[in-house]
Amino acid sequence: MSRVLVVAAHPDDEVLGCGGSIAHHTTAGRTVGVLYLTSGEHASPTVAPDQLGPIREQEAIAATGVLGVAADELTWLRIPDGGVDVRDSDQVGAVMTVLRRFQPTLLYMPHPDDGSFDHREAAALCLRAAGMAGSANFPEWGGGPWWTPTILGYEVWSPIADPVYLEDITDTLEAKVTALWCYRSQTQTAKGAGQADYVGEPARYLAGYRGAMTGGGFREAFTVHRLGTVPL
Amino acid sequence: MSRVLVVAAHPDDEVLGCGGSIAHHTTAGRTVGVLYLTSGEHASPTVAPDQLGPIREQEAIAATGVLGVAADELTWLRIPDGGVDVRDSDQVGAVMTVLRRFQPTLLYMPHPDDGSFDHREAAALCLRAAGMAGSANFPEWGGGPWWTPTILGYEVWSPIADPVYLEDITDTLEAKVTALWCYRSQTQTAKGAGQADYVGEPARYLAGYRGAMTGGGFREAFTVHRLGTVPL
Amino acid sequence: MSRVLVVAAHPDDEVLGCGGSIAHHTTAGRTVGVLYLTSGEHASPTVAPDQLGPIREQEAIAATGVLGVAADELTWLRIPDGGVDVRDSDQVGAVMTVLRRFQPTLLYMPHPDDGSFDHREAAALCLRAAGMAGSANFPEWGGGPWWTPTILGYEVWSPIADPVYLEDITDTLEAKVTALWCYRSQTQTAKGAGQADYVGEPARYLAGYRGAMTGGGFREAFTVHRLGTVPL
Amino acid sequence: MSRVLVVAAHPDDEVLGCGGSIAHHTTAGRTVGVLYLTSGEHASPTVAPDQLGPIREQEAIAATGVLGVAADELTWLRIPDGGVDVRDSDQVGAVMTVLRRFQPTLLYMPHPDDGSFDHREAAALCLRAAGMAGSANFPEWGGGPWWTPTILGYEVWSPIADPVYLEDITDTLEAKVTALWCYRSQTQTAKGAGQADYVGEPARYLAGYRGAMTGGGFREAFTVHRLGTVPL
Amino acid sequence: MSRVLVVAAHPDDEVLGCGGSIAHHTTAGRTVGVLYLTSGEHASPTVAPDQLGPIREQEAIAATGVLGVAADELTWLRIPDGGVDVRDSDQVGAVMTVLRRFQPTLLYMPHPDDGSFDHREAAALCLRAAGMAGSANFPEWGGGPWWTPTILGYEVWSPIADPVYLEDITDTLEAKVTALWCYRSQTQTAKGAGQADYVGEPARYLAGYRGAMTGGGFREAFTVHRLGTVPL
Amino acid sequence: MSRVLVVAAHPDDEVLGCGGSIAHHTTAGRTVGVLYLTSGEHASPTVAPDQLGPIREQEAIAATGVLGVAADELTWLRIPDGGVDVRDSDQVGAVMTVLRRFQPTLLYMPHPDDGSFDHREAAALCLRAAGMAGSANFPEWGGGPWWTPTILGYEVWSPIADPVYLEDITDTLEAKVTALWCYRSQTQTAKGAGQADYVGEPARYLAGYRGAMTGGGFREAFTVHRLGTVPL
Repeated sequence: MSRVLVVAAHPDDEVLGCGGSIAHHTTAGRTVGVLYLTSGEHASPTVAPDQLGPIREQEAIAATGVLGVAADELTWLRIPDGGVDVRDSDQVGAVMTVLRRFQPTLLYMPHPDDGSFDHREAAALCLRAAGMAGSANFPEWGGGPWWTPTILGYEVWSPIADPVYLEDITDTLEAKVTALWCYRSQTQTAKGAGQADYVGEPARYLAGYRGAMTGGGFREAFTVHRLGTVPL
Repeated sequence: MSRVLVVAAHPDDEVLGCGGSIAHHTTAGRTVGVLYLTSGEHASPTVAPDQLGPIREQEAIAATGVLGVAADELTWLRIPDGGVDVRDSDQVGAVMTVLRRFQPTLLYMPHPDDGSFDHREAAALCLRAAGMAGSANFPEWGGGPWWTPTILGYEVWSPIADPVYLEDITDTLEAKVTALWCYRSQTQTAKGAGQADYVGEPARYLAGYRGAMTGGGFREAFTVHRLGTVPL
Repeated sequence: MSRVLVVAAHPDDEVLGCGGSIAHHTTAGRTVGVLYLTSGEHASPTVAPDQLGPIREQEAIAATGVLGVAADELTWLRIPDGGVDVRDSDQVGAVMTVLRRFQPTLLYMPHPDDGSFDHREAAALCLRAAGMAGSANFPEWGGGPWWTPTILGYEVWSPIADPVYLEDITDTLEAKVTALWCYRSQTQTAKGAGQADYVGEPARYLAGYRGAMTGGGFREAFTVHRLGTVPL
Repeated sequence: MSRVLVVAAHPDDEVLGCGGSIAHHTTAGRTVGVLYLTSGEHASPTVAPDQLGPIREQEAIAATGVLGVAADELTWLRIPDGGVDVRDSDQVGAVMTVLRRFQPTLLYMPHPDDGSFDHREAAALCLRAAGMAGSANFPEWGGGPWWTPTILGYEVWSPIADPVYLEDITDTLEAKVTALWCYRSQTQTAKGAGQADYVGEPARYLAGYRGAMTGGGFREAFTVHRLGTVPL
Repeated sequence: MSRVLVVAAHPDDEVLGCGGSIAHHTTAGRTVGVLYLTSGEHASPTVAPDQLGPIREQEAIAATGVLGVAADELTWLRIPDGGVDVRDSDQVGAVMTVLRRFQPTLLYMPHPDDGSFDHREAAALCLRAAGMAGSANFPEWGGGPWWTPTILGYEVWSPIADPVYLEDITDTLEAKVTALWCYRSQTQTAKGAGQADYVGEPARYLAGYRGAMTGGGFREAFTVHRLGTVPL
Repeated sequence: MSRVLVVAAHPDDEVLGCGGSIAHHTTAGRTVGVLYLTSGEHASPTVAPDQLGPIREQEAIAATGVLGVAADELTWLRIPDGGVDVRDSDQVGAVMTVLRRFQPTLLYMPHPDDGSFDHREAAALCLRAAGMAGSANFPEWGGGPWWTPTILGYEVWSPIADPVYLEDITDTLEAKVTALWCYRSQTQTAKGAGQADYVGEPARYLAGYRGAMTGGGFREAFTVHRLGTVPL
């Protein structure tokens, strides 16, 4: 049975990027885990980081719960928000440890050309750790070698210039929108006018645009970085 | 007074890419022209090209009319649909002739990394012609040299990876949506299910996504290829 | 049942690029077709083009026969060798016609960054035609719309910088080597010392290198341009 | 009234990259500030870093004074020379603090493809900080959110492959040359033969080349990373 | 003895791009040939193409004569100005014929990222022809196979982002400037104010900038596309 | 007399990437040194890092000895395996110190687009240090300025997309293969099935592929980043 791991730089990226796909996986009975690199604790004009981190973690538990993910499949690395660093050996090792323990057959991460620095760095970190986790070297990070066969990149902050895979999420769009509503700390209501906010109606826009270009409905778009088998 | 020229590979690209911005220009009293490279006459499963070309031209007159563009400011090169070619000297010359006659201060074209081959070729053709039109050489294409100071690229088929300019079109979105409705030959009603169709609600999606990422409302996104002056 | 189409700029590219994978498909009972854009008739220092074209076509029939491909699944466009041109509407249409008739679920083509101009142009031609073939537009090229769900790029002249998919061909390597031996017109014996020649032992090298880097055996490497479903 | 901020990796970059443009801004009465990331204290074969830093700061005060910049508009971050690092949260925060306090409407930085590692890192740091400064998040770095509407990249060590904006500095070239003479610690007289040196006549060369290609005179060339409004 | 071939899209590119280096080669007794793809006959606001072509050819004979190139080593393909096309088999073949006859050991061409469409296309044409000329195939273009071991790209319209080789031309700069004066049809005197013009003083600027960045004097900058041997 | 320095991220990269070329240099009497950035101490599933580092250093002494390199020309920086970092001033300085002391006329490094993160970072580190070592600045890292005239990139983990230089190593291939056998800690025998392993027969594959494409025999492929003189 497939095992799906989603890596998010901040809580909410996992829903924005591939929430509709996550709902497909859980509906089909596949185990889905989420690895949060940071808890996004600097993302508020008013709530202090030591308060916001726990709040966003609770929001994440609720949001992914809407999508059918069990709370005990969430992993929190708690790298400081803004501090994801592909050159940090401990961060690389921590991701390796999760990969070797969870043993995903399918990995989602931010696409590597996202306009957000944190997302680009998260993608680089995933790719580096996924390469090293598959080697028998580095036993100090635990577990045996695990080669993740398929790796996709999702879009959040910047659209993907030329998507390779599009998943039709028309049937799970409402679950995705509902899940995003759990992230109330990230709305304009919480942050003030003029801030980015894709909770609510905007959550439909990018998927609607992707759908309109490819025959209708709503779709999530992905880059493909590794493919384990050719679909036949 | 500024003069604005929009280059479209096919009728409807001008509205999809920058219809909301066009409405701003006409409202402000600026002259807006549109140069249609092809008339998009192969874009139907049922209507023959020699019929579809004139239909789409009529749709374009109606659509741009909604945006405030005068019909006599539309130019039709009637390059065969699918045949835009940056290496064709006659095509390059024909665009040069239009640039020297219309003398735009602001030029819109498809962005050069669009996934549509025709759009990419149209962008290359615009950039080549704009470079040559500014030279005193090539008198055979008429007019004196005209250097277009500012050139922007709009998004249609593929989103721009990293937009440089975003225009808030919240106030002209409805005009854009209404203009797109004029292109009835390009809807799923006309073409059948499963075809790309962004007439109607989907016309709001990309602009809504761009807006959500930058503070709300609806925005059109652009690349910048030449800038005549720095805004101060 | 899956249907597999391989596009080759010249006879022998299909074996060099994905001959081991072809043997997998035919062994599994899938229909495999090959579309030869040119017949490679200029690839000899001594045999005239009007003779070499038919010779290479016969070699191709023999070679793909070794891999289990039926001779009547081979299509010859006979574009002049060296003349593949993504801007040529008739070439684009001819490829569209083949795609709509053969209806592949999996398409192989040269990868788009190959050092050979002809291979790069063949890749661009495939991608443009595959995009247009999926549209209900362009009925003049026959058939109904056909959207090829999965497209892979194989390596021949230049290696792929960062392969996304690797197929283990250890079990079909000998069939691939045998198939290549059918292309006797392309050997140093035929052409003289100092010419490129990967018939024989060299046919194992690139696959051996790819295998060595990923755990042993022999592998064919691919880029991925479209993916129809995520392997689970 | 516009407010202009120039970010320099080392003292002298601001004059080399956009000294002629700075003189335009000050002449027009706009406030111009300069943010020096490092004080360039390792740029001498003979003067010790703890002496050279203060020397180059004094040179900078003199040089920008020639261009009409007030000494109290210069900010010194004093990151160790060679140590600019887009991944360093404190550096990112320090730049954010300056952006929110100075509130530039126009920002100049090194262009992101400069051959100098330090310049590329400075560009990345500016873009990251400019993105974060515009968010209501990160109140710990002071001030309210400030979105810098227009960001240009200037050329110093490597020319820009394809400039988007060119400013005619024929009228301020002599001021730029005079300003560069203030950086006496960076001349071959100070460093010895064989070292890079564009104080004096060489200060005219790149601007002269840019001018020659575009109609005469002297020009500074820029990339454009954000544009606040379209010039009309 | 080395044989040097310079490919120019238009007469004057050879001097602008590598005139100082040409003078080094002729001084050292090496045979230098120039292949002019077009005769640049559209490069005047007032002189008709059928007159300008011969004028520029005479200018080229004079200019390269200043640099020590014999007039009978110049080859004129007379492709229509603006019509260089890497996809045109006859153009590819014509360049192959010249390469196989002249047998250069060192080839100069425009660098492939030049902002001029014609220059980019000329570079692509050179690389394609140089690849094919080295093959024993294509006997129809005459001569035996010739593999040009070293290929450099020079800069004219756009600077090279990251030069690999810099030749010190301080000692031949005056010859280069003198040679450029032969191209009187290309000056502002001939064409009018506001046109690009690097005859005269501007001819020193780019070389002066390259020199200033690398220790003084004047230098020509190059990309390297093939290298025959490693200098030791 | 030329002096050759090879930079390796891990012991064995120097042989894999350019072992055949090294043998040419030592046979010709040139001094060859190797700078090992790390000792690759994490590259084993069973041997602890503090044991593996010394083992791999001994393997390196043996391997390079096979190629004719003197043991006292090997330098060990002992950066932690996985920790090469172009942003680390001490690492940059340490490489500068070696460059200024060894004074190479020819430098080999990993090519900058290698799929291995460590190799890419090593390439960036070499290029940064080589740029700084040539300046009279930075006397704190010892020696006088040293400008390395020629820098090549070799291929190990990922092939070079478009090699600029190919060295025929047919005559030194066996020495290269023998040298690789010295790295017994890196074989599947040592690490287990399924791990990358190019000791033995696989050591011939990439060179054999490069040879087959260019006339036969075995070749090592290189990128070229700096060129000191043009071969004539």
